[in-house]
Amino acid sequence: MAAPGENLRINPDRLWDSLMEMAKVGPGVAGGNNRQTLTDADAQGRRLFQSWCEEAGMTMAVDTMGNMFMTRPGSDPDAPPVYVGSHLDTQPTGGKYDGVLGVLGGLEVVRSLNDLGIRTKHPIVVTNWTNEEGTRFAPAMLSSGVFAGVHTQEEAYAKEDAEGLTFGGELSRIGWVGDEEAGARKDRMRAFFELHIEQGPILEAEGKDIGIVTHGQGLSWTQVTVTGKDAHTGSTPMPMRKNAGLAMARILELVDEIAWSHAPHAVGAAGHIDISPNSRNVIPGKAVFTVDFRSPDVAVIRDMEHRLKTGAQKICEDMGLEAAFEKVGGFDPVTFDAACVTAIRNAADRLGYSHRDIISGAGHDACWINRVAPTAMVMCPCVDGLSHNEAEEITRDWAKAGCDVLFHAVVETAEIVE
Amino acid sequence: MAAPGENLRINPDRLWDSLMEMAKVGPGVAGGNNRQTLTDADAQGRRLFQSWCEEAGMTMAVDTMGNMFMTRPGSDPDAPPVYVGSHLDTQPTGGKYDGVLGVLGGLEVVRSLNDLGIRTKHPIVVTNWTNEEGTRFAPAMLSSGVFAGVHTQEEAYAKEDAEGLTFGGELSRIGWVGDEEAGARKDRMRAFFELHIEQGPILEAEGKDIGIVTHGQGLSWTQVTVTGKDAHTGSTPMPMRKNAGLAMARILELVDEIAWSHAPHAVGAAGHIDISPNSRNVIPGKAVFTVDFRSPDVAVIRDMEHRLKTGAQKICEDMGLEAAFEKVGGFDPVTFDAACVTAIRNAADRLGYSHRDIISGAGHDACWINRVAPTAMVMCPCVDGLSHNEAEEITRDWAKAGCDVLFHAVVETAEIVE
Repeated sequence: MAAPGENLRINPDRLWDSLMEMAKVGPGVAGGNNRQTLTDADAQGRRLFQSWCEEAGMTMAVDTMGNMFMTRPGSDPDAPPVYVGSHLDTQPTGGKYDGVLGVLGGLEVVRSLNDLGIRTKHPIVVTNWTNEEGTRFAPAMLSSGVFAGVHTQEEAYAKEDAEGLTFGGELSRIGWVGDEEAGARKDRMRAFFELHIEQGPILEAEGKDIGIVTHGQGLSWTQVTVTGKDAHTGSTPMPMRKNAGLAMARILELVDEIAWSHAPHAVGAAGHIDISPNSRNVIPGKAVFTVDFRSPDVAVIRDMEHRLKTGAQKICEDMGLEAAFEKVGGFDPVTFDAACVTAIRNAADRLGYSHRDIISGAGHDACWINRVAPTAMVMCPCVDGLSHNEAEEITRDWAKAGCDVLFHAVVETAEIVE
Repeated sequence: MAAPGENLRINPDRLWDSLMEMAKVGPGVAGGNNRQTLTDADAQGRRLFQSWCEEAGMTMAVDTMGNMFMTRPGSDPDAPPVYVGSHLDTQPTGGKYDGVLGVLGGLEVVRSLNDLGIRTKHPIVVTNWTNEEGTRFAPAMLSSGVFAGVHTQEEAYAKEDAEGLTFGGELSRIGWVGDEEAGARKDRMRAFFELHIEQGPILEAEGKDIGIVTHGQGLSWTQVTVTGKDAHTGSTPMPMRKNAGLAMARILELVDEIAWSHAPHAVGAAGHIDISPNSRNVIPGKAVFTVDFRSPDVAVIRDMEHRLKTGAQKICEDMGLEAAFEKVGGFDPVTFDAACVTAIRNAADRLGYSHRDIISGAGHDACWINRVAPTAMVMCPCVDGLSHNEAEEITRDWAKAGCDVLFHAVVETAEIVE
């Protein structure tokens, strides 16, 4: 495979304009987007993306999960395609770039190839994976998961939103149930590349243009239920209390200690906390909270889970309380494909962008697709690490750098026909 | 004053039957009561109590706060009355005894005097204070507070419930705005006695029949707001986190340490905790929680408040977070009247009931009335310390002992006419 010349670049203004145009679909209330999966706004965004792809000469296939595959043909009809993309759905109060940059970046790769009159041996397929966010229908990355065989389509169709509407019903209602069996094409993929904003603060803090994602962190969610006894805050002496809130506090400290003990890559926190009865003058009788541990090393995740259980059990026993644990989510760490990662790193070097290897802390469609195809990710910085927020922001230069690197990695893998 | 003879006893079956009859008004969903203040059920309970009092020969006065004063005349028209009572309103999921025992205990005192043909020099007035609970219209002890000059009636009338209905409007709607100016009689009270369930576990645990309440704990509520930064739990390295949940955990530990340092009477906890955005995969950017400190010693309360602020400030500064403090509630400790307390202690001794001095951890109408009249409280145990709960329970023997002691204290203070 010949590497593309360093003068090959995407059109950053066109990319930015498309991002801004897509952001008009399903606007939020504070400058971002509310284009949740399988809503009318999602359907409208899909049609806009479809129209742009068709203008760029691509043909559409849609699978039974609503995943969109927009194909630019290659010169060799037998060559497996190179896939590039991400997701167009957003959080309820989401930003303009999370997911969208990866899809429209893929489109910009094709548009730039068209501009430059470059043919590739392998077809290039730009994908929009349905329901990456998982806010409306949990879990996240649902349709790339079905595509990769992680979930069954039956399970996915039965998922309900807060109003009791099903995924299957809503996919049908918006008119995006395709004919192609989900996952049918998964054994004929040359590679998958996903460009995404970092959703974290590292690249911006270090002044790097590009993150080369070598691993996806594994995740473990343990829901801890501490049961003590509700009692009046005034009339219950200290030695007679069974304060579930205090036991929780001690466990939160333990979670922090455990995560630090596996520095620098492991992280741990509890984002969700419910205290019961949550009244100012009642000692909490119950605390339910979810501990989120992540690490790129599966052995570290298992160690953190084990130490949480034994440590929390001891804390509660010492206080005369009960602790119960339920694993409510998890996936194993991901090691991305070495050749794909190298293609991204070489592209960044060739184009003169500063870069560092990075571990993705968040889940991405690429984490599931990595199970069925050689996969890697390119990250660009985002302001202040902010994401899942309408104020999510990136610079035009970051978008340009990320998409240039994506362009080179895709084109090198798809092989320019001389 | 001559002490009543030890053979003078109330009628425990009648007391119990009245408690059970009142419990039929505004039943709860789990065996307790939902007779919240100024509801139709409250009006019905008031009418039932009024009818019983009138059958017992008492006459009614009602003040502009809806406080009920049911008077049994004394032999001396110039003698200031002895007051006895509590409140008939309940929590939304309240018990059958919290407050009610004190009101119907007062009624039983009068009924027993009638049975025994005993006259007293001083009138006896059985009171039902409006809105002790404060659940529907905060704060608690609202109408005894207006009576005692702690709040103005104008403030009280303007209080709104969750549906925006005002206290003044609802008091009028149920037809219980009286003619008498609230507090008009406060300078002519010989004493006030309140019988109440403990709402704590001490008496039952120690096997005591009677708690002689010498003090009411002072209370200080500080709402702490810790501001960090929302961030993705996966993509934010440990050193770059500003985890408001973790800072809160450290402050909760500090609260516990501070309370223990003032053993045995001080207590401290946080019953109300709100984490934001409270999502499993977002590091909490904000934690708002209310620290409840209590002590019978005002200097201890001030020390605890001070150490909370300085300690929490340091914890947050060390973590790069912000802390803000707002005092959202409080009252100074109460020292009950020495003569009234002695009357109760002597009554318990005379009647042969086991007893101990106790500090009331909860607020009671007696805490406000103590500002305007010599006041004391009698407590009886409750099962498992449970209160503000439909499962709240006491035994007939506990009710009997508490009411016997109340009877003796009231009668001694009201002076039997030989």
